[in-house]
Amino acid sequence: MGNATYDVVVIGAGPVGENVADRVVRGGLTAAVVERELVGGECSYWACMPTKALLRSATALRAARRLPGAREAITGDLDAAAVLRRRDAFASNWSDSGQVSWLDSAGIALYRGQGRIGSDRVVEVWTGEDGPVVSLTARHAVVVATGSSALIPDVTGIREAAPWTSREAAAAAEVPGRLAVIGGGVVASEMATAFAGLGSVVTVLARDGVLHQAEPFAGERVVQSLREAGVQVRLGAEAASVHRDGEGTVHITLTDGERVEADELLVATGRTPNTQDIGLDTIGLKPGAWLTVDDTLRVLDDGALAGGGWLYAAGDVNRRSLLTHQGKYQARAVGDVIVARARGEAVEDGRWGRHVATADERAVPQVVFTDPEIASVGLTAAAAEAAGLRIRVVDYDLAAVAGSALHAEGYQGHARMVVDEDRQVIAGVTLAGPDVAELLHAATIAVVGEVPLDRLWHAVPAFPTVSEVWLRLLEAYGR
Amino acid sequence: MGNATYDVVVIGAGPVGENVADRVVRGGLTAAVVERELVGGECSYWACMPTKALLRSATALRAARRLPGAREAITGDLDAAAVLRRRDAFASNWSDSGQVSWLDSAGIALYRGQGRIGSDRVVEVWTGEDGPVVSLTARHAVVVATGSSALIPDVTGIREAAPWTSREAAAAAEVPGRLAVIGGGVVASEMATAFAGLGSVVTVLARDGVLHQAEPFAGERVVQSLREAGVQVRLGAEAASVHRDGEGTVHITLTDGERVEADELLVATGRTPNTQDIGLDTIGLKPGAWLTVDDTLRVLDDGALAGGGWLYAAGDVNRRSLLTHQGKYQARAVGDVIVARARGEAVEDGRWGRHVATADERAVPQVVFTDPEIASVGLTAAAAEAAGLRIRVVDYDLAAVAGSALHAEGYQGHARMVVDEDRQVIAGVTLAGPDVAELLHAATIAVVGEVPLDRLWHAVPAFPTVSEVWLRLLEAYGR
Repeated sequence: MGNATYDVVVIGAGPVGENVADRVVRGGLTAAVVERELVGGECSYWACMPTKALLRSATALRAARRLPGAREAITGDLDAAAVLRRRDAFASNWSDSGQVSWLDSAGIALYRGQGRIGSDRVVEVWTGEDGPVVSLTARHAVVVATGSSALIPDVTGIREAAPWTSREAAAAAEVPGRLAVIGGGVVASEMATAFAGLGSVVTVLARDGVLHQAEPFAGERVVQSLREAGVQVRLGAEAASVHRDGEGTVHITLTDGERVEADELLVATGRTPNTQDIGLDTIGLKPGAWLTVDDTLRVLDDGALAGGGWLYAAGDVNRRSLLTHQGKYQARAVGDVIVARARGEAVEDGRWGRHVATADERAVPQVVFTDPEIASVGLTAAAAEAAGLRIRVVDYDLAAVAGSALHAEGYQGHARMVVDEDRQVIAGVTLAGPDVAELLHAATIAVVGEVPLDRLWHAVPAFPTVSEVWLRLLEAYGR
Repeated sequence: MGNATYDVVVIGAGPVGENVADRVVRGGLTAAVVERELVGGECSYWACMPTKALLRSATALRAARRLPGAREAITGDLDAAAVLRRRDAFASNWSDSGQVSWLDSAGIALYRGQGRIGSDRVVEVWTGEDGPVVSLTARHAVVVATGSSALIPDVTGIREAAPWTSREAAAAAEVPGRLAVIGGGVVASEMATAFAGLGSVVTVLARDGVLHQAEPFAGERVVQSLREAGVQVRLGAEAASVHRDGEGTVHITLTDGERVEADELLVATGRTPNTQDIGLDTIGLKPGAWLTVDDTLRVLDDGALAGGGWLYAAGDVNRRSLLTHQGKYQARAVGDVIVARARGEAVEDGRWGRHVATADERAVPQVVFTDPEIASVGLTAAAAEAAGLRIRVVDYDLAAVAGSALHAEGYQGHARMVVDEDRQVIAGVTLAGPDVAELLHAATIAVVGEVPLDRLWHAVPAFPTVSEVWLRLLEAYGR
């Protein structure tokens, strides 16, 4: 068994682990990452990138079909094979050689294998079960950035039926004739949209509704649009048992006795942290649990710093926000705070300081690439009320904006701004409409910047863009 | 001749005049507007709306063509006739009945005719030259919102050749086989893009370059793309004389002796204020001149308030910013300040106050709907330096953003952020790329909100969107 020492050892080389190591190295420390699968992680091969590649061509074709003059030029259908090939390219054909080159150029050491905490500040790398091949000692910090995996719900026969999770959907080599989806969250909604667009007959079994954590109008519009695209959306439907027969057909029996048949079943009911097998027990933490962290992303155990303060957790694994961009945001804070502490420099851990992930709390942006797209940041009206804020909800019909009407015939959309009345700032914004993804960052800057409404009146949207909804929302609020 | 008295009389019922009157009426005063042409103004019938309708379908079709899977479905070309019909609808078929209904519902009186200031606080309405048909007295204020018209340059024979201005281009009933354009600004660039897309053979004679007030890369990219679309762009070319022959062909002789032939000639070399015939001389102001205003948009004469302080000017006519959205922004300030003064309430005329148009100075957003789109706000690097700011320019290749690559194959674009180093805020942003229009408002809020760079690090762009360029710009700036 070999030995090596680094300032920082990161378990997991997804976008979060990569960014932690990068910040650390830029700060003058040494860093190693340990990765059991592909360098680049879930996002690169089985999530963000391939799923958006599956969705984008259909979105653009739909946009063109919504415009007189353009629609006349379109005589054919989406070419599913071409979309799958493009997806393959965006998943780098599931080769991480590009990412490995990047690690190399960034001066980050890579160890392939399962990283397991062996003792204080020590990470062992296992490539089989005969013992570690190398033992890495971290002078300053160990960072867990192992992400999460699909949760398989406790339904009779479901594992034996070999269902798809987000991974298999994102990497699908063929478009199934019939696809059933258990779940109603982001993965379920996006993949139902994608495969319906690619030609599958899709059934969605959404026990808890669709996008139920978003503003209610978001899920309603996605459901309506999925149904218009031929998707069967069964709200409240719950699978009781699943069976795949000898010919490959999946039979799903619902709790109300109804049956659904499909060629593939996608299970998208939640996530579980990848902490089962990383040696958490050696330092008294519970394997398989989410890791609790302080505002500088240091792991806590019953309120105290776990392991004496050398252990950090960033990304999905700390459950603050299961989104790549938010994990990378945490990674920048973690990397920088480890450097600051190693050098004995001041830690900027005040609200919105450099070394804390303040935005995780009430300023998390998210885009769901359905039709319509759902873009949101900050608190929904319900969440703001639950948090005890005194709010005013301002709604506006996106279709009534000149820029929207120009953007597409029959544009349908909706915007909601939640105002924190006491502070006269925006607590949250949700947009539902075609191509609203790029409108979101304006809201994120307004929320994070805590820009007062009085000042926002001076931020003039260019005419005629969809962004003019900002003026309409302010006018609806009044001054 | 009739007489009537209102609290406020507005000359010009374009978007600016309409918004002034609306704010005034909402503030409890009475208002009349005087309009010699169509209610709704240039923007509704001969500028923003119809031109964007001319451009949008081609943009959407181009976007779909840039995506494998979608491009295979497109076998035909843009249907120009369908685009022209859509344009007609967006110009309300040049009928203002909808706008008139809106005035009515908003409680604003409409007088059709030429509005001329007759004496202090008095606006006469002329429908012929036999004297005014009605005399309107304004208790509190007269607002000039008459906009601007195309400037016809002093070129031999040009008027006799009956050239198109922005109006005729926007309202064109047919697509000319050959279109020559004199000018290189926004109108010239957009209309060259539109008519090339609709099938015209286009030649652009851009004496001063293309989009020369923007960051240099903006014009360069538009020129490159116009040329790729088959447009002849002649930088530095200047027309010496113009002649339309008996068969309708326009012959343009350049100062270097070269000749250009076309079926139509669009002249887009600048604007002139519509102040020639509004009675400015009766109060000692110069007809045909731009109106100078203070920060509450009150007209100044040699530094003093013209007419004793009852005269305001909003929109193009004051030359602060020749953009519909910025004129409407001024209109809100004007309307509200007139109400405040009428009621003896406090005038909020401090920087970013309710009654001043502070954003006109250094926070004006603009989108040019060319291919690529050019979206900018605030100061260019050159303008910031000329203003004496200590700046740092941060550039980033938009094509290197994951969201851009997903958005279109071969995405080409560029982003520039100009940082005010002393204040650590953004002084300006320019984006060039397909579909960047909706990215702009984030920059506008950052500039207007004066959000410090330290805080902007917490505004996380959703992955994978084009907006991730915000993170890349901050990373390039460093922290």
